[in-house]
Amino acid sequence: MKNNLFDRFKPKESKFFPLMTGMAQVIVVASDLIIECVQITNHTEAVEYYKKIKEQERKADDIQNQIFEELNETFITPFDREDINHLSSTMDDVMDLINSCAKRIMLYSPKVMPEASLRLAMFVRESAGFLVKAIEELDVLKKNTNRIKEYCEQLGVVEKKADDVYEHFLIDLFENETDAIEVIKLKDILHELERATDAAEAVGKIIKTMIVKYS
Amino acid sequence: MKNNLFDRFKPKESKFFPLMTGMAQVIVVASDLIIECVQITNHTEAVEYYKKIKEQERKADDIQNQIFEELNETFITPFDREDINHLSSTMDDVMDLINSCAKRIMLYSPKVMPEASLRLAMFVRESAGFLVKAIEELDVLKKNTNRIKEYCEQLGVVEKKADDVYEHFLIDLFENETDAIEVIKLKDILHELERATDAAEAVGKIIKTMIVKYS
Amino acid sequence: MKNNLFDRFKPKESKFFPLMTGMAQVIVVASDLIIECVQITNHTEAVEYYKKIKEQERKADDIQNQIFEELNETFITPFDREDINHLSSTMDDVMDLINSCAKRIMLYSPKVMPEASLRLAMFVRESAGFLVKAIEELDVLKKNTNRIKEYCEQLGVVEKKADDVYEHFLIDLFENETDAIEVIKLKDILHELERATDAAEAVGKIIKTMIVKYS
Repeated sequence: MKNNLFDRFKPKESKFFPLMTGMAQVIVVASDLIIECVQITNHTEAVEYYKKIKEQERKADDIQNQIFEELNETFITPFDREDINHLSSTMDDVMDLINSCAKRIMLYSPKVMPEASLRLAMFVRESAGFLVKAIEELDVLKKNTNRIKEYCEQLGVVEKKADDVYEHFLIDLFENETDAIEVIKLKDILHELERATDAAEAVGKIIKTMIVKYS
Repeated sequence: MKNNLFDRFKPKESKFFPLMTGMAQVIVVASDLIIECVQITNHTEAVEYYKKIKEQERKADDIQNQIFEELNETFITPFDREDINHLSSTMDDVMDLINSCAKRIMLYSPKVMPEASLRLAMFVRESAGFLVKAIEELDVLKKNTNRIKEYCEQLGVVEKKADDVYEHFLIDLFENETDAIEVIKLKDILHELERATDAAEAVGKIIKTMIVKYS
Repeated sequence: MKNNLFDRFKPKESKFFPLMTGMAQVIVVASDLIIECVQITNHTEAVEYYKKIKEQERKADDIQNQIFEELNETFITPFDREDINHLSSTMDDVMDLINSCAKRIMLYSPKVMPEASLRLAMFVRESAGFLVKAIEELDVLKKNTNRIKEYCEQLGVVEKKADDVYEHFLIDLFENETDAIEVIKLKDILHELERATDAAEAVGKIIKTMIVKYS
């Protein structure tokens, strides 16, 4: 699969941006699915949604492998190899956490999904939206610095909101759920959504660091 | 807010060190507050202390933003931009964990705060003390290598002690607390303090790596 | 302990590879011990195994310190200093998690160790085997790129298997264990083994990134 020498010297920056945008879009699709997934009412649906989300997770893995292959075969990259790696692997963390939430819903079979799970899933979706926007403008990083920075800051804002919803869900859970095993299950399931917004914020921080470095 | 070109070329190293020292000092203030916070006896006090600690957390955020702005506007930095970023964001983790502990005390309303929480809070304070010392001498890193290394190693020593206290607290909790939900609450609250010493140790490791790199 | 100037200029790459291989071999020894440790039947044995594993953890710490000293005293290193640091500290994470599992078994005294713990310990051992192989060939990274990449991918495969075993253990635990405190204990103990395979996979990812960078 090696390119000839001439190809390897040609700047192929254009490949990295569509791949990374593709990964961000996969996260958007998975976020839309997790919003439906937290509203399921029986185990059959849980299995179905987990399968659909798992499919997206595999797509994200494929894209990350393609990015890795590209890095191997390209001499001139738009950013340092390590930065591209770091960025795509942290985006992959967002995907993994959405997937892990769906998996836990299927595996743990909680008695009922709390309302907070829907609010958290919607924050994950909101984060995914800002991710796509920030990533889509990466190729003109120098031009749109302020706008990209704004998207990254919004990722921080959403993370803080998700954190609050998660914490208040916990207060409510501790006060009203007497079955300790149910407490453990729901705490663990919703935690993955809160962590997904953390990971999205981490992507924002990486991009902000790249702004410092490259603009 | 951009400086003129001449300003941007002038070495402004002096700004980074006071900012980072300022952040370490904020962590000291927050550590003093968390020592009092784990000794509260009612919910009103919990709310009060959380507000005070949150205020420190905001100060740390402001300082990190200032560091970020400085990195954007300064051509010549005393260390690589990424190292300064990594250092200040890991210090911010220490602050976040202290804040998260105070938040959980307020939100979870545990029946009683165990004695181990005071010991852990005091370890966090001890870590904060070594952080300030190590950061204060960063500007003469080449001169005081051995002393800075010693502070960083002390951060590792404190972390090990905190780990032991946390683990023994858990044994005791599992043996004597029959209410499983109370087990979950206390385990989660004290965990943040133990993690704060972990994060402080991580700052020490970053500084040690910087010693390798710059001295 | 400083070398003379002449020594410091001499390439001493050879020292890093045996040190890193040594660390991987310590992880293998610890993995063999954790396989026995999860099969203990009383507290005395738990204490014994914890001591033996702790000894390996100290060996790994010593090796990491030696690597750190070498980085300080060597001008020419086979890879960037930061990469060597990152690699050895992530290997140390694998060791720490094995140690933490043994510690929790001793401290928590679970009523009975579930069968899944043995399966997870064997996955940790399998990961350790691939770690040794990948690390042993690092010094000829350019020659054996594909083989090293294969070992790193196997670390991902093992991690996925460990993840599945852990998740299915959790389903079973939630369904059949009515004592919520026992649920918390076993969940926490087995989690460290699952996380050890995560950390081993992370080592694989670092090596893959190094392949991108140096080959």
